[in-house]
Amino acid sequence: MKKKVIVTIGRQFGSGGHEIGEKLANALAIPFYDKAIIQMTAKQSGIHEELCELSEETATNSLLYSLSTGATLWGQRGYTENDLPLTDRIFIAQADVIRQLANQGSCVIVGRCADDILRENPDCIRVFIHASMPFRMNRIEEVRGLSEDKAIREIRKKDKKRASYYQYYTDKKWGYSENYTISLDSGEIGIDNAVEILKKMYELRADLAGV
Amino acid sequence: MKKKVIVTIGRQFGSGGHEIGEKLANALAIPFYDKAIIQMTAKQSGIHEELCELSEETATNSLLYSLSTGATLWGQRGYTENDLPLTDRIFIAQADVIRQLANQGSCVIVGRCADDILRENPDCIRVFIHASMPFRMNRIEEVRGLSEDKAIREIRKKDKKRASYYQYYTDKKWGYSENYTISLDSGEIGIDNAVEILKKMYELRADLAGV
Repeated sequence: MKKKVIVTIGRQFGSGGHEIGEKLANALAIPFYDKAIIQMTAKQSGIHEELCELSEETATNSLLYSLSTGATLWGQRGYTENDLPLTDRIFIAQADVIRQLANQGSCVIVGRCADDILRENPDCIRVFIHASMPFRMNRIEEVRGLSEDKAIREIRKKDKKRASYYQYYTDKKWGYSENYTISLDSGEIGIDNAVEILKKMYELRADLAGV
Repeated sequence: MKKKVIVTIGRQFGSGGHEIGEKLANALAIPFYDKAIIQMTAKQSGIHEELCELSEETATNSLLYSLSTGATLWGQRGYTENDLPLTDRIFIAQADVIRQLANQGSCVIVGRCADDILRENPDCIRVFIHASMPFRMNRIEEVRGLSEDKAIREIRKKDKKRASYYQYYTDKKWGYSENYTISLDSGEIGIDNAVEILKKMYELRADLAGV
């Protein structure tokens, strides 16, 4: 019998982490979760879907955070989970959704600090996808028609947001190899070969009886 | 026809990087270079083998460095390669050896900043092997019969030396995933599975015609 395996994927902006995750999930015929987690979080927490989406990669510096912290300070009530900054409440709700998904069976989950949320879960393969700036610029230009300058700025901005979101919630450094079971350079390896390697890894793990 | 592929392996102390490299080279029937590079460097440079061995992972803080820097300052001669600190001269000689080995054909090279020395080489797969402290403690205890306390201290000391040697010569952060084609947690994956995954990666690369 195959063992349950959860694959979490952290990824630099433009590295193809989403595409790799989706292709891997298709190849293995297991569910793939990326943006759907936002809808599930909204539904489960009662927090508006747009706010859940906004909060992603926002961490502590946003207007959203200031507003929600302000609301807490002004509230003058007893301190409950509802008094936490909205971004933190969304994070907690999202973490619950991720743990539920991981309980249901093998799947691929992209982003949202899932690697750290599931850090005690022995069924988890934690993946990080990165690539050189030229490779990423090329992908983003292709996909979104941005100029080279804009692409570089966009990449740096997005990476910075992801890094600070990750650091804020996990207290670990984003992209540091020690935090992941496997890290891959998708530019050097190629998207499809990266999928092949992760598939191999998944199969080796799924075949281990009870480990 | 198979393409030439050079596999460089950086590794945390006790992570099994040496063993993984050796098993990979055996499985692929290609040469494996670790300590042998020291002998080749000594032979080629005329610097004593023991000094070459000492210089490894020494970088800038050692007595060896002070002595050799002192010799340079006191020399009051024109500045040639011979006036460089001995550790730097050994590094340069070692880099030459590594480039020669990479030219000769497919091989596995462990340590010695080979990933960075061969950074312009398109045939290169740069690997980093890491593992949790308990896994590494266990390996080192097994191999060397150290107490738990000593094992932890030894691991931290060795990692620190490797990190500062790497940073000094490459100006990059040791163990940061961006510097490597693939990083693997040998504790989580297991030594033999790590070999399997690298073998898969090697074959994917070797089969690419002219890429």
